[in-house]
Amino acid sequence: MDGTPGLGEVSLGEVSAPGRVAGPDEGISTAELALATRNHGLPLEALAHDTSPPGLHYVLVHYDIPATDPDVWRLDLDGHVDHPLSLDLAALRARPAVTHRVTLECAGNGRARLTPRPVSQPWLAEAVGTADWTGVPLAALLAEAGPRAGAVEAVFTGADHGVERGVEQDYRRSLPLGQAADPDRGVLVAYAMNGAPLPPQHGHPLRLVVPGWYGMASVKWLRSVTVTDTPFTGFQQAVAYRYRGVTEDPDDPGEPVTLIAPRALMIPPGFPDFMTRARVVRPGPVPLAGRAWSGHGPVVRVELSADGEQSWTDAEVTADPDRPWAWAAWRAGWTATPGTYLLSVRATDATGRTQPLTAPWNRGGFGNNLVQRVEVHCLAE
Amino acid sequence: MDGTPGLGEVSLGEVSAPGRVAGPDEGISTAELALATRNHGLPLEALAHDTSPPGLHYVLVHYDIPATDPDVWRLDLDGHVDHPLSLDLAALRARPAVTHRVTLECAGNGRARLTPRPVSQPWLAEAVGTADWTGVPLAALLAEAGPRAGAVEAVFTGADHGVERGVEQDYRRSLPLGQAADPDRGVLVAYAMNGAPLPPQHGHPLRLVVPGWYGMASVKWLRSVTVTDTPFTGFQQAVAYRYRGVTEDPDDPGEPVTLIAPRALMIPPGFPDFMTRARVVRPGPVPLAGRAWSGHGPVVRVELSADGEQSWTDAEVTADPDRPWAWAAWRAGWTATPGTYLLSVRATDATGRTQPLTAPWNRGGFGNNLVQRVEVHCLAE
Repeated sequence: MDGTPGLGEVSLGEVSAPGRVAGPDEGISTAELALATRNHGLPLEALAHDTSPPGLHYVLVHYDIPATDPDVWRLDLDGHVDHPLSLDLAALRARPAVTHRVTLECAGNGRARLTPRPVSQPWLAEAVGTADWTGVPLAALLAEAGPRAGAVEAVFTGADHGVERGVEQDYRRSLPLGQAADPDRGVLVAYAMNGAPLPPQHGHPLRLVVPGWYGMASVKWLRSVTVTDTPFTGFQQAVAYRYRGVTEDPDDPGEPVTLIAPRALMIPPGFPDFMTRARVVRPGPVPLAGRAWSGHGPVVRVELSADGEQSWTDAEVTADPDRPWAWAAWRAGWTATPGTYLLSVRATDATGRTQPLTAPWNRGGFGNNLVQRVEVHCLAE
Repeated sequence: MDGTPGLGEVSLGEVSAPGRVAGPDEGISTAELALATRNHGLPLEALAHDTSPPGLHYVLVHYDIPATDPDVWRLDLDGHVDHPLSLDLAALRARPAVTHRVTLECAGNGRARLTPRPVSQPWLAEAVGTADWTGVPLAALLAEAGPRAGAVEAVFTGADHGVERGVEQDYRRSLPLGQAADPDRGVLVAYAMNGAPLPPQHGHPLRLVVPGWYGMASVKWLRSVTVTDTPFTGFQQAVAYRYRGVTEDPDDPGEPVTLIAPRALMIPPGFPDFMTRARVVRPGPVPLAGRAWSGHGPVVRVELSADGEQSWTDAEVTADPDRPWAWAAWRAGWTATPGTYLLSVRATDATGRTQPLTAPWNRGGFGNNLVQRVEVHCLAE
């Protein structure tokens, strides 16, 4: 097959543009839509499940889902360590396994609600999921490898490859060694999700799971863990995933995106209109329920408002103390009478962090944990 | 919790608006985005899998995924029959089971490429998937129930409930009895996908699978099959899923949407830019591969163009004659030299149907099988 190039030579910089924010009246672009049709959120009625099955748990893939072969897959643990490891899946499965129930959320959740809208994966509020992840504690593997004096970080490399804002890369992130090697942080090298091998889109055959952190830390298709004696300055650490543009300084390096801010979501009550997802109920008692989580500490309070956030009422919150990294369940009663309502819900965690009533803007559109507002119409009968 | 209604009494007509097309410069709206973040397509690199795992197989849910309990689920087969049936899952599983590999595609696939854009689920090209579906042939169940003389259709009712363009409904569709009861059409009442119980989003615990037809016919969360002696005129049959607006007649009832039009898709070569999904390759041989399918007959030809559709080259097509309802695989070679290309691919089936170079418009945005065009940049080195 012959090909006729449409242009002359191209460079990565021409193919892959800098980040930008949408114009004042700019709807979601085809590029944003292409991301939204590949990646997907949790349909909010699936908050009813304690754990989220594949296809309901949110997925965000930076590049392509790589083709991987579990029979030849190896995890290399090397760098600033005394005893480098190179383990196949059988060697990992032969080690003591643990299972943690962990709620993961995309750092960009809520981005499409910001004004101006940072142009990237356009999440509204649904980029969340909870699963039982089974694998080997990273702390145990690091102890086996023996970090040398002066080690400061562990750098995680995935097998997904692409270009982003002009930088060709394998997806790569780091954690401070103090977090990576802390048994209480519970970081896992996981090979199973909800009792089955990882699905392709969730990192098959091996991924990192970092409880409490936004999802960008939980590197999928994990190939290597490299212990370093200097902080990692790669693209996903130093350029992307920073809270920037909060100050006026154009050279602001920003603060790193780390732990998940508190959020509550409700199972939308009643039934939906297909096109708008507005909710319809009939007069009478309407049970309200959902989930709430925070990476900073346990959720201690969930509040609801049905009067445009003039008053708030406490919901009943049920958390499992043995599963500190999983979302809590909440429920509340509401009696609907005919009319149109905006139901709002917000979570507060044990550190006192709560959800704002106006969205906190930053250039990358990270950590927008604005309260959820659900439009509900109660018919006359 | 008290509530203060924002408006007085509301009606379904106020909550649920008529269909519309987007304005000339109207980007994807928040309502369309809300659908795109819930439903999801097949990430195109997943065309590499013969069957699509949950989370990669496309999903379109009209209303909410219903909460279902397999322990009490019953399928009622009634209406214009001599021996009505009411079967639990154990009774269905006790009957002879068959497994069919079936490619399903949403009738709205390609809608977001139309101008003007019908406002609904905004698919680009990825609303497809292939699975091994296991269950009981519908023909066998219908034979057991014994349709009476004069029976013309089978009406299928799902458990998902909502409102659409002002009409409150359970999702409901029919098939002509000749198709429903034809063993060669292969319609299944399925309880397993790829060897596992149906996931919630694919119809757990029971769904219809109608080979060759667009996905709207394969009713999920199937509760009943009602044989009728008059044609079904419900919303999803007579109002939605019609090719309308092809003529100038505003009262045009349209033609029903039925069989899948031919389409080929390619696994995007090289690696992507995160934001635009444009592809990057380096000079040299670039293997191209993908899938092709048609509901009208076997795919007999797949052609590729790398020169803006001035010339086309045949790809090698491999179909499994024992799996007539599954996509065929195709592959071709291409040698990339520096420059920017639009790679195009099109399928032709045994009936001579092929894919158009300009999108065939209709008001609902159905059946747009425009050729796929993938932008590829070959770097100098």
